[in-house]
Amino acid sequence: MRPRHPDRPFKDVRATAANRLLDRRVFMKAGASALATGAFMTFSSAESGAAEPPDTPAGMTRSGAPLSPYGSPAPFEREVTRTLIRSQPGTTGAGASRSPLEALEGIITPSGLHFERHHNGVPAIDPAQHQLLIHGMVARPLIFTTASLQRYPMESRIHFLECSGNSAAMYQPTSPALTCGQIHGLVSCSEWTGVPLRLLLAEAGVDSRADWILAEGADAAAMSRSVPMAKAMDDAMLALYQNGERLRPENGYPVRLFLPGYEGNMSVKWLRRIKVTDTPTMTKDETSKYTDLQGDGKSLMFTYPMEVKSLLTRPAPGLRMTGPGLYELSGIAWSGRGKIRKVEVSADGGQTWAEAVLSAPVLAYALTRFRIAWKWNGAPTVLKSRATDDAGRVQPTRDELIARHGANVIYHYHAIQAWRVESSGEVKNVYA
Amino acid sequence: MRPRHPDRPFKDVRATAANRLLDRRVFMKAGASALATGAFMTFSSAESGAAEPPDTPAGMTRSGAPLSPYGSPAPFEREVTRTLIRSQPGTTGAGASRSPLEALEGIITPSGLHFERHHNGVPAIDPAQHQLLIHGMVARPLIFTTASLQRYPMESRIHFLECSGNSAAMYQPTSPALTCGQIHGLVSCSEWTGVPLRLLLAEAGVDSRADWILAEGADAAAMSRSVPMAKAMDDAMLALYQNGERLRPENGYPVRLFLPGYEGNMSVKWLRRIKVTDTPTMTKDETSKYTDLQGDGKSLMFTYPMEVKSLLTRPAPGLRMTGPGLYELSGIAWSGRGKIRKVEVSADGGQTWAEAVLSAPVLAYALTRFRIAWKWNGAPTVLKSRATDDAGRVQPTRDELIARHGANVIYHYHAIQAWRVESSGEVKNVYA
Repeated sequence: MRPRHPDRPFKDVRATAANRLLDRRVFMKAGASALATGAFMTFSSAESGAAEPPDTPAGMTRSGAPLSPYGSPAPFEREVTRTLIRSQPGTTGAGASRSPLEALEGIITPSGLHFERHHNGVPAIDPAQHQLLIHGMVARPLIFTTASLQRYPMESRIHFLECSGNSAAMYQPTSPALTCGQIHGLVSCSEWTGVPLRLLLAEAGVDSRADWILAEGADAAAMSRSVPMAKAMDDAMLALYQNGERLRPENGYPVRLFLPGYEGNMSVKWLRRIKVTDTPTMTKDETSKYTDLQGDGKSLMFTYPMEVKSLLTRPAPGLRMTGPGLYELSGIAWSGRGKIRKVEVSADGGQTWAEAVLSAPVLAYALTRFRIAWKWNGAPTVLKSRATDDAGRVQPTRDELIARHGANVIYHYHAIQAWRVESSGEVKNVYA
Repeated sequence: MRPRHPDRPFKDVRATAANRLLDRRVFMKAGASALATGAFMTFSSAESGAAEPPDTPAGMTRSGAPLSPYGSPAPFEREVTRTLIRSQPGTTGAGASRSPLEALEGIITPSGLHFERHHNGVPAIDPAQHQLLIHGMVARPLIFTTASLQRYPMESRIHFLECSGNSAAMYQPTSPALTCGQIHGLVSCSEWTGVPLRLLLAEAGVDSRADWILAEGADAAAMSRSVPMAKAMDDAMLALYQNGERLRPENGYPVRLFLPGYEGNMSVKWLRRIKVTDTPTMTKDETSKYTDLQGDGKSLMFTYPMEVKSLLTRPAPGLRMTGPGLYELSGIAWSGRGKIRKVEVSADGGQTWAEAVLSAPVLAYALTRFRIAWKWNGAPTVLKSRATDDAGRVQPTRDELIARHGANVIYHYHAIQAWRVESSGEVKNVYA
């Protein structure tokens, strides 16, 4: 029998919301059994081509490339890069680069594609020369070298990091015509390993009247933020490793502060100093920047946690639909308040919603991957996702967010995202 | 007050096993409170130096490096590479390269340092040209392109991959004087994302008499293995993504089979063909290779799961102890039978054992990071770790393993590893 491309019509799968969002049990093991008994379907009806077995590929006729000391992505993936957006003319290296979210899957961001946000470029720090000072309201001021930190107890945790300015373009009056990653790619997720800050603070002996710390980076911007002592003594970490290996330079090599769930700039990179204080220090980075100007002209300060948020990443602007038929929709959700409880998806612009499958492990302060099947009939429509975290917080609509905070703020955008799917297969960012 | 390097003596921490392995609650939050109230200790007493605050580093006086499209490790980490060991003279690229386990932390292996094992090098495959055939005892032979696989439902899972020949040097009569990674670095762990094989088999329509599949790679070795249908219909995956991005070339780009817990060579890379069969195919790779020659001259075939195993990676050969005092010992454990239940550590050559802390998440078929504190008195001793999986299987001693299987076998070595710590701080691989 000649093999052929799968092109069977869709059959017998129950919809759970309007416009054919499909029951999530379809792809469970029981679902696969159902497929095997005849109720099968195909996800690739757009494919066509010869019905013969593949020819022996050229790569099987000659020896391949040798072993290598440190690997790189395939040459065919060379367009999968961070998008560089320079925001401070006249400075070198200041600005941001964004993760290409629509090209990624799962929850781990490869370190080479982790977003960057620098205020004056990436310093080149020799770990043998680097020192970290803990001083201020402590019994015993201490200096740590990178090597001395290596002997301390460590923890490993998978956590997202999101720049507070992520998705800021969505506050604009007209929807930006950018890819998913260009709009929302200031979020990434890694396994971070490092020393709990509470151990070092305990060793220094914190004055009982001290309620804050100041964290300062060794970059030319001397990035500085005040952090409540409660967070410092809870889950704050001095991260030394990112996805198994030592931190990447653009993520704070050789050591960064890491504050799970908090806006990214507070996880101060290239950490050189922690000063224990009784009040916030009111640094430039928390007065002139990283305050949230509200509609009434006042500003919110110290808005630490990133709010519950989600995005469909497949499809999304930067990808195309390849004709009507079955698809799996895939996306990411996260909350700076804890774990994701559920993600709902709409294929009719938000009139009806179906619950997506969350891929295990679902971890606190980590990206959570969600997926749901959709039978696209080829007509234009609007796709949305809406996340709820384990504190019960739900993503607002864009209108609700702007009604609450105004449109002058450039931080903490976390509204429900709408992607319009055109009958051509094009996917666009829309306000809908 | 002048800051100074931490150099306080160790005090008041209970030992749980001989030679000062410490109670694991020491580093919990309650432990940190205990430290703050005076029972503090230091992990860095080996440090010395000036007691002044650090000078302003040069990196703070000039703008740093710019944003980059795809990041790389710091230049100071250039010696952290895979170790290349070519095993087939006269072939290009055949052999293995090993992960530098003693330089890594957490459970994720960065893709650039994931071990390699190739039988005839890494083929360069254009994903737009690649085809995957499913044929044999099926109702509907199917050909999939890489693009068509992209539309199918996916799962993401964090899983280790271990070459069945990992640690083979440990069968030698004298203990090899190699680093931890050089001995044991044919194990790595990634987040893999791909299409459950059962969905594609269901679509092809598997004959009820079929009990096996054959998986064939598109490399010049045409790597081929038979896989039981039960595994294929359970948790087998066609992996497209590794740690968020598309597979690396040396890990099977654009698509590989992934069989959780099974010996690495069965997770056939560069997958081009799955043939559904009623019996195993008896390929060269499962007759002349990857059978386990026993002490009695017979061979075991089809020994799929990798057995329960653990290693201390810090300290380990390739690292040095930096003088007496407090340390955190760190290591990895895994089992091809499921999850790790516990890891015990001995600091007296195996006479007494203390239970280590397992770092969450503890996942099936994934590396599990364990840690325990140790106060080294500077005397020579032998460190060991011993893992137990959730099926109750415990690592054997080397003597027990060889008594059971002989020393001719080169696969599936998983005995308890002993590292000798010399008073100089040197760490050596020993049979003890």
